[in-house]
Amino acid sequence: VDKTHEQKALARQQQLTKPPGSLGQLENLAVKIASLQASEIPDLTHVHITVYAADHGVMAEGVSAFPQSVTAAMVRNFANGGAAISVLAQELMAKLDVINVGTVEALEEILGVLDKRIDAGTANFCQSSAMTEQQCQQALLIGRDNVFSDIENTQLYIAGEMGIGNTTAATALASVLLACDPTDLVGPGTGLDQQGVQHKLNVIRRALEQHTTQLDKDALTVLQTLGGFEIAAMAGAYLTCAKQGIPVLIDGFISTVAALIAEKIQASCKDWFIYSHQSAEPGHQVVLGALNAEPLLKLDMRLGEGSGAAVAVPLLRQACLLHNGMATFEQANISKGDK
Amino acid sequence: VDKTHEQKALARQQQLTKPPGSLGQLENLAVKIASLQASEIPDLTHVHITVYAADHGVMAEGVSAFPQSVTAAMVRNFANGGAAISVLAQELMAKLDVINVGTVEALEEILGVLDKRIDAGTANFCQSSAMTEQQCQQALLIGRDNVFSDIENTQLYIAGEMGIGNTTAATALASVLLACDPTDLVGPGTGLDQQGVQHKLNVIRRALEQHTTQLDKDALTVLQTLGGFEIAAMAGAYLTCAKQGIPVLIDGFISTVAALIAEKIQASCKDWFIYSHQSAEPGHQVVLGALNAEPLLKLDMRLGEGSGAAVAVPLLRQACLLHNGMATFEQANISKGDK
Repeated sequence: VDKTHEQKALARQQQLTKPPGSLGQLENLAVKIASLQASEIPDLTHVHITVYAADHGVMAEGVSAFPQSVTAAMVRNFANGGAAISVLAQELMAKLDVINVGTVEALEEILGVLDKRIDAGTANFCQSSAMTEQQCQQALLIGRDNVFSDIENTQLYIAGEMGIGNTTAATALASVLLACDPTDLVGPGTGLDQQGVQHKLNVIRRALEQHTTQLDKDALTVLQTLGGFEIAAMAGAYLTCAKQGIPVLIDGFISTVAALIAEKIQASCKDWFIYSHQSAEPGHQVVLGALNAEPLLKLDMRLGEGSGAAVAVPLLRQACLLHNGMATFEQANISKGDK
Repeated sequence: VDKTHEQKALARQQQLTKPPGSLGQLENLAVKIASLQASEIPDLTHVHITVYAADHGVMAEGVSAFPQSVTAAMVRNFANGGAAISVLAQELMAKLDVINVGTVEALEEILGVLDKRIDAGTANFCQSSAMTEQQCQQALLIGRDNVFSDIENTQLYIAGEMGIGNTTAATALASVLLACDPTDLVGPGTGLDQQGVQHKLNVIRRALEQHTTQLDKDALTVLQTLGGFEIAAMAGAYLTCAKQGIPVLIDGFISTVAALIAEKIQASCKDWFIYSHQSAEPGHQVVLGALNAEPLLKLDMRLGEGSGAAVAVPLLRQACLLHNGMATFEQANISKGDK
């Protein structure tokens, strides 16, 4: 992260025709993006959004309000332009990739979907590790490769996810990585009732007991044991963005858990993450807190797909436009006041 | 407000390819705008933003961190495209009007500024009423006329303000209209230090004691006694929008106090108001609470000019686009789940 450009951007913010600090978080955003891009003219015209879709073996335990077939159906919907992220990406003129990293059933060839299916969903982590070591590496590389696929054009990267059952995996992962009780994190996901949430909690507890030894190891092993293909792919993408100097806009609960994994693997990558929103899923607030993340929006969204991040993109763009386009006091011939 | 379209929009939200409720406040926004526009396709392409600028006699008491000349300088800056609201309005492809309702000095003719100067600023409300009854009516009509000036094209109206000293006027107004102690509302405005805030509080207390009899009367009399030309113009615009069926996006503290005045004059207009953000000015939260308003953003902005409302426009537009553009479960051939 470039301290010279950070200082220049801070100095410019003090010169713009407004009371210092009066654009609040928009000022911080502009300074942060200027510093991450090492540019005096921060610019987020080119946004790369990738939705990673995969199924979860733990669905055998009945942990979601939706049937597993919805994952594949939504992959088609992303490609057809009917999903929330499709609508938002089009509006933002963002590049939208959809990657099948592991739906239960193999899908027909779909225009606009990259078939990188690792397996027929992960294994049920109540019985064995969700992924083999090789599968986990494969998923991380899919994320890495996706970042590289358009790296020259990407000014901001967003990873979204789709995977029926994946709040169960994310909750289990965060419980282990934050060393907290799953009760503090577990929530309704796409719409479980109270009884469903209790069952989900029991399933997670069983998995944590099952894998005690494995879960005492490094973050990568924890990811392999409890994660999903899409979560690993997101973590791989995040790590690559940080290494390659591309700012990342983090989405909701699943996305934040993937960011947590990335930070556990490589602490310095946190500098590259901007947290877009706090979702309605109760665990999200806890994980954001642990990461010292200050999300921009709190709109009770809980959809995933990268939708919350996409909704925040205009704020980031406005922050840049104001930074670049406003007149300075000198240009406007205005006295700066006399506090 | 159209209940049929509200019901239709609610039903559509349940059919879109997402877990019900998962778009959070964006769903409420889409339903609200559909209902206000009595349309199945809510649309906010055409936004009309008007900045009302005026000076305040109470500046004789030394209540701001900035000199009074800044009001006029900023009027020029609005028109020249260098101010925050100019940059934002351009990005939103919004119509931007700038109206001088009463700077201390008469201004040269400025391209892009409507000269509707009522007087050389208001009177110092520590000595007399800020406005005469006629001046207050004149200001209300300026707002009304501005709404009518482009009413066929306006799908959303935003009023912004510029007036050095106007948080003092707004704080005094809100204290009276909410019957609360000014201590609970007073804040730094554009950047007073603690001592400055204490002095501002004393000035407001003096004004409230000075006008005890007047301030016991209706909201219009309170407005005339303590308000500013720009605040009255905003209230006039808000009342007209509500009467003419145009949704209004309310900006920050001053703007919310103008909305409070409009609601006190005509309670039913509250249906037409959407609150964009909660500013850093401490009184804003109190006034929003009294209005049962739930602001969309909380970004510590405190600039005025309509800037906070402008920053929230993309959220409203995204809410509409998602409502109109997402596929239904039936269209995407997706099972709705089996809670």
